[in-house]
Amino acid sequence: MTTADTTTLRWKRLLLTGAAGGLGRVLRPRLKACCDVLRVSDIADLGEAAPGEELQPVPLQDKAGVLSLLAGVDAVVHLGGVSTEHAFEDILPANIVGTYHVYEGARIHGVKRIVFASSNHVTGFHKQSQTISPRDPVRPDGYYGLSKAFGENLAQFYWDRHGIETVSLRIGSSFPEPVDRRMLATWLSYDDLERLVIAALSAPVVEHSVIFGMSDNPLSWWDNTPARHIGYRPQDSSAPFRAAIEARQQQIDPKNPVAIYQGGGFVTKGPY
Amino acid sequence: MTTADTTTLRWKRLLLTGAAGGLGRVLRPRLKACCDVLRVSDIADLGEAAPGEELQPVPLQDKAGVLSLLAGVDAVVHLGGVSTEHAFEDILPANIVGTYHVYEGARIHGVKRIVFASSNHVTGFHKQSQTISPRDPVRPDGYYGLSKAFGENLAQFYWDRHGIETVSLRIGSSFPEPVDRRMLATWLSYDDLERLVIAALSAPVVEHSVIFGMSDNPLSWWDNTPARHIGYRPQDSSAPFRAAIEARQQQIDPKNPVAIYQGGGFVTKGPY
Amino acid sequence: MTTADTTTLRWKRLLLTGAAGGLGRVLRPRLKACCDVLRVSDIADLGEAAPGEELQPVPLQDKAGVLSLLAGVDAVVHLGGVSTEHAFEDILPANIVGTYHVYEGARIHGVKRIVFASSNHVTGFHKQSQTISPRDPVRPDGYYGLSKAFGENLAQFYWDRHGIETVSLRIGSSFPEPVDRRMLATWLSYDDLERLVIAALSAPVVEHSVIFGMSDNPLSWWDNTPARHIGYRPQDSSAPFRAAIEARQQQIDPKNPVAIYQGGGFVTKGPY
Amino acid sequence: MTTADTTTLRWKRLLLTGAAGGLGRVLRPRLKACCDVLRVSDIADLGEAAPGEELQPVPLQDKAGVLSLLAGVDAVVHLGGVSTEHAFEDILPANIVGTYHVYEGARIHGVKRIVFASSNHVTGFHKQSQTISPRDPVRPDGYYGLSKAFGENLAQFYWDRHGIETVSLRIGSSFPEPVDRRMLATWLSYDDLERLVIAALSAPVVEHSVIFGMSDNPLSWWDNTPARHIGYRPQDSSAPFRAAIEARQQQIDPKNPVAIYQGGGFVTKGPY
Amino acid sequence: MTTADTTTLRWKRLLLTGAAGGLGRVLRPRLKACCDVLRVSDIADLGEAAPGEELQPVPLQDKAGVLSLLAGVDAVVHLGGVSTEHAFEDILPANIVGTYHVYEGARIHGVKRIVFASSNHVTGFHKQSQTISPRDPVRPDGYYGLSKAFGENLAQFYWDRHGIETVSLRIGSSFPEPVDRRMLATWLSYDDLERLVIAALSAPVVEHSVIFGMSDNPLSWWDNTPARHIGYRPQDSSAPFRAAIEARQQQIDPKNPVAIYQGGGFVTKGPY
Amino acid sequence: MTTADTTTLRWKRLLLTGAAGGLGRVLRPRLKACCDVLRVSDIADLGEAAPGEELQPVPLQDKAGVLSLLAGVDAVVHLGGVSTEHAFEDILPANIVGTYHVYEGARIHGVKRIVFASSNHVTGFHKQSQTISPRDPVRPDGYYGLSKAFGENLAQFYWDRHGIETVSLRIGSSFPEPVDRRMLATWLSYDDLERLVIAALSAPVVEHSVIFGMSDNPLSWWDNTPARHIGYRPQDSSAPFRAAIEARQQQIDPKNPVAIYQGGGFVTKGPY
Repeated sequence: MTTADTTTLRWKRLLLTGAAGGLGRVLRPRLKACCDVLRVSDIADLGEAAPGEELQPVPLQDKAGVLSLLAGVDAVVHLGGVSTEHAFEDILPANIVGTYHVYEGARIHGVKRIVFASSNHVTGFHKQSQTISPRDPVRPDGYYGLSKAFGENLAQFYWDRHGIETVSLRIGSSFPEPVDRRMLATWLSYDDLERLVIAALSAPVVEHSVIFGMSDNPLSWWDNTPARHIGYRPQDSSAPFRAAIEARQQQIDPKNPVAIYQGGGFVTKGPY
Repeated sequence: MTTADTTTLRWKRLLLTGAAGGLGRVLRPRLKACCDVLRVSDIADLGEAAPGEELQPVPLQDKAGVLSLLAGVDAVVHLGGVSTEHAFEDILPANIVGTYHVYEGARIHGVKRIVFASSNHVTGFHKQSQTISPRDPVRPDGYYGLSKAFGENLAQFYWDRHGIETVSLRIGSSFPEPVDRRMLATWLSYDDLERLVIAALSAPVVEHSVIFGMSDNPLSWWDNTPARHIGYRPQDSSAPFRAAIEARQQQIDPKNPVAIYQGGGFVTKGPY
Repeated sequence: MTTADTTTLRWKRLLLTGAAGGLGRVLRPRLKACCDVLRVSDIADLGEAAPGEELQPVPLQDKAGVLSLLAGVDAVVHLGGVSTEHAFEDILPANIVGTYHVYEGARIHGVKRIVFASSNHVTGFHKQSQTISPRDPVRPDGYYGLSKAFGENLAQFYWDRHGIETVSLRIGSSFPEPVDRRMLATWLSYDDLERLVIAALSAPVVEHSVIFGMSDNPLSWWDNTPARHIGYRPQDSSAPFRAAIEARQQQIDPKNPVAIYQGGGFVTKGPY
Repeated sequence: MTTADTTTLRWKRLLLTGAAGGLGRVLRPRLKACCDVLRVSDIADLGEAAPGEELQPVPLQDKAGVLSLLAGVDAVVHLGGVSTEHAFEDILPANIVGTYHVYEGARIHGVKRIVFASSNHVTGFHKQSQTISPRDPVRPDGYYGLSKAFGENLAQFYWDRHGIETVSLRIGSSFPEPVDRRMLATWLSYDDLERLVIAALSAPVVEHSVIFGMSDNPLSWWDNTPARHIGYRPQDSSAPFRAAIEARQQQIDPKNPVAIYQGGGFVTKGPY
Repeated sequence: MTTADTTTLRWKRLLLTGAAGGLGRVLRPRLKACCDVLRVSDIADLGEAAPGEELQPVPLQDKAGVLSLLAGVDAVVHLGGVSTEHAFEDILPANIVGTYHVYEGARIHGVKRIVFASSNHVTGFHKQSQTISPRDPVRPDGYYGLSKAFGENLAQFYWDRHGIETVSLRIGSSFPEPVDRRMLATWLSYDDLERLVIAALSAPVVEHSVIFGMSDNPLSWWDNTPARHIGYRPQDSSAPFRAAIEARQQQIDPKNPVAIYQGGGFVTKGPY
Repeated sequence: MTTADTTTLRWKRLLLTGAAGGLGRVLRPRLKACCDVLRVSDIADLGEAAPGEELQPVPLQDKAGVLSLLAGVDAVVHLGGVSTEHAFEDILPANIVGTYHVYEGARIHGVKRIVFASSNHVTGFHKQSQTISPRDPVRPDGYYGLSKAFGENLAQFYWDRHGIETVSLRIGSSFPEPVDRRMLATWLSYDDLERLVIAALSAPVVEHSVIFGMSDNPLSWWDNTPARHIGYRPQDSSAPFRAAIEARQQQIDPKNPVAIYQGGGFVTKGPY
């Protein structure tokens, strides 16, 4: 269930927020494999605690609850919050207020490393005809992307002001396999997701670093060269899935914003 | 009361938020001079309506109230909100939620130009030993700076998604005259503030542009070259005030973060 | 004859100009393999039409003829024109006037994607001691390179003005194998040429993109990072040929412009 | 008629092409003031030769004629050719072929400095909401702009290959005074035009340099910082004309390409 | 003798090395005007001590002597050393070893600000046809330039390692007036030299900053935009001297390295 | 003992300085394999001369001795000098004066290619949280790094002034295997060291090029993209050693400069 080269790394206690979500369920056993205790949190059902797990469900907008989540952990993988585009009012509590709570918890409890699940939607209004790097300016494609851009800025501030390190992962599309043409560029396999999170947790010095989360896809809009110091090396690729996807999905009209912009379908959602 | 070269510009109706604040009171008569109707809003007392003024007090977190503020205006000068560093919970309602309300109002009512009072605190964790431009990455120095960075990203999004133009003014220190050593670099005279706002309102095409708001100070940390298309030309300078300030204020210890970072005193405020 | 992973892509009708030239003969069967009808054109003898081929010989300077070439095609691979350095008067008709005719044909007949055989000679006066990317300025090394730079600018204009997409391929040295020391850097194998052309035809959104056409050669002057969105991944390398070439070809005097500049022998041709 | 500080510069013989055109008539007496002999050429009527003038009318597409034009001159101010947007076939002979003739003449006759009247239309598809510099990529807005981009590349080639220096002047709008809103940004007064041409002729070393030709206009889309070595210092400004222009000309709809792009009206001309 | 706006600045004790050299004699009374005690040093005759002066002659290669020079001073203006091109063996003792001694003295005695007389010869192999900024790479034009590049790196190291701040002044040509064509670009008037040194001494935070030392010359190869935080504003210009210089000095053959490179005559000195 | 693909390259006579040092002993037989005569020099015992070797021991500060070292060689691999941090007085003779002697020898004897063992300590005060390239500014972390930065500038000067080419290798940590956590990023295997040196000797045109010397380590602080023209392709990786190192070495406190900066332990050495 875990990739071979990471099992030697061990933390005493890690916190995983959003553990009941799509990627949370993927990472939960994989993170457990490299720590003594894994504290998991979510507002959805977390099921039974596996050996070495602590279940601590709390809504992210609950400040006291979130602060207590951070007590005694070595590092955090913060996946929690709304993970797709919604009305601003639905994004605000968990993604903006909640992420602030997580960083306050880290500050108060002396947690020094956070892996923050940001998103490619932070730069979704860049074009698919461009290759961008983490040094290019943000162009969020919706309230979700705006909330993730806020989280990245928050991470930068807590580094500059309080010395808490973060790797912001601008995750592409993490699914068992790519399922549409856009994912040929944005796909992040589950094994590569694990590699990315482990690299972000274990890179020796990161201050606040930003890295795009993608597998080794032939066609890509993202250049991770400025993040080589994270040490992430993807091993999977969307290439084997290309023929089948192109056979079953028509090409999108290139005048459609969904085809023009990296954010794909997000760029036309709303207004609400 | 207004600078000579701007009085020929005329809008039918402008909206000024934060009209009872420090800069709001400065700009209120100057904006009135170049529009038929000036709608002013604030939560503090706005006094009597002058001829051609509409008083429409509303808290920025009141969505319906803010939406109605935008009805029928040609352009907005959005100064409203908390204007110094405070706890996150105090910044959130007006600066984050409220600014979202302003942009929603613009979208719903078809307002096409917003001048957004951002702040140099969006980049306050850059060093005083560096000269930065609007192309450099943001490094907010507190919750206030974070809220302004959110506002800039929101502005970018409403341009990319809805075609609403914004000039984000990263205002330095706008006071009758510079009063401490830091303001020798950051001072923006009231006349230059007016020039800057008028330039931002009247530049023909701006999409989302960012410009630092400073007078023609000899020592500066900011290079506005990438914003020449706004057409702002400062006429004032901190130079005549330098000798008096240096005579009465000791130099700050250069190992003090307040001296190291551009944000000055903001960078050590809190935690709350 | 074709690389395995591209045969699933299918166009109804493609146009290949310069089909009787060196690279045209290489690409003709490979392109045929991924379209229903391949229209081929040249001024040299095109031989017999293979099944699914349309032969339509026309000189590129013949405007009416070229316009009709573009009727009914989905996309174009434009290799036609003079392909080495000559006097300006010999380059002008096919390369400058003719390429204009191709783009006018695309505009009139609604063709939306052109793969343009540009050349490394567009940047031939950069030095072999430098690694350049498609973002660096052009420095043509002769009239041939000037004509290709004109073609790239034309492609940019037809994108900006008329929405016709182009990938400009700055082809290095495409031969069965590298035959001199310079080609150790510039070689593009025929299989990689095919991969490059197919990538350029099938990348979802390209606007006007520029990419250097080379195999995965260890020593290279070109960095294609800004063109990752094309999805080109070379599979071949000049490395296996190095020892034999260096055994039989003396090193060129490093003070010779042919050794100094990337354009090699082109940089000393003429004047005519 | 000439600006005071340039009269001490003296050349033996200068060539002015396009001497009967709008800017040619402006520069003719001013250049005469700083050389012993001014050779003037055009296809339109050049009138009587003033003292120290040589009239040598020749169409630019006449190779032999143009070559002879270059004989015995110290430097060239090349204004000749079509100066607004037209069909490609009308632009080609004078602007592309003709400019090639001028450079061939310079090569054959050993002329070492050319001042080339390029145009802001070489970058006309950049946006009015951006400030660009000569280091940004070209984006021609029509066949005229394409021909000027060709001329700039030709100039680069004749420098790299033959050691002939050029300053390419991307002239904005040179008229007695600005006459519309766009010219508030692009205006180049006649006196500043003279300053620019003289600077380009007399700067000690220029290789191939590019500089935007504008007066000291408050609002501008162009940053000439990378061309400080030319030594051009504009003295005039569009500011005094602003109020009158804005009073008589309505603002252009900001969704109109004419308002969006720097090229203004050029970007929608044609197709022909 | 001093410029009006600097006399209010006061230090207790400043050290001026190279006080008997060309620029040392210029700065000696001007620095005295803004400090209680001016310690001056040189190996040449320093004359009589003026009121408030301390004479402390010492060769820079004398480590103990130099260390004692630094005792009790607030800041240093380090002009000492060989100031033109010589054999390496003649440059080494004062410029490389001696500058190391100065920084060791500063470290040992807790001096926190050094103004280092670097030189434009640190970048002398950049071309006169280019405009460079302090961010461009160094290209020394001789052993003198190499020694100054060493000094700049030393300054960077003593900042990074020991927290000693330096402003490295890449001084152009500081003379009573420009005396040849090159100085039209490189001239630094004595008054502007004083402004520059005072700005470097009094800028609030500089870490290690680099700035070119030139007056406001119309033609320049240097862009000081990245050093705006120093607050240097030149007031003089080479313009009034241009006509006379060009009348009496022939233009240098543009194929001569002396004309091609910014370093002028330095680039052809030696070998020794 | 040598990697397979380099044995076909042959020089008549190569010079290897520092041949008795750690890397000298590694390279001595490998270089011998690709030249007729290998001249080796050091101040330590060089042992017996192998067939085809010339032993010529000389201290680098001995000018006459070093000059004679360069007589009759085709190219130089200059490893000589102090290779770790020491007091400035110990670094100066061999590293600064000695390297000058090597370049003077090359100039006098017409040697045209030098491979210079620079060091990652030239940029050691960049952070481990950053990925830098050879285009980023130097930040030496000690006198050793300062001496190597001097050597790189010297190399640039001898190219610009005398046409002697150099590849400066910023060697990471070249050992049989990585032995601590820092070397997971900086390790350069002996086989990759050989590949790097051979690439630097045999790349056709290099002027003065800088390249970081590291194996294909997953986590790295260095991006060699701008040096692709050297043709170096590492084949080894620190990855297989990671688990064992992390098991036996505790992570360094991230607030320790040794963990913060790329230079590791060097950044806290001294003062002496």
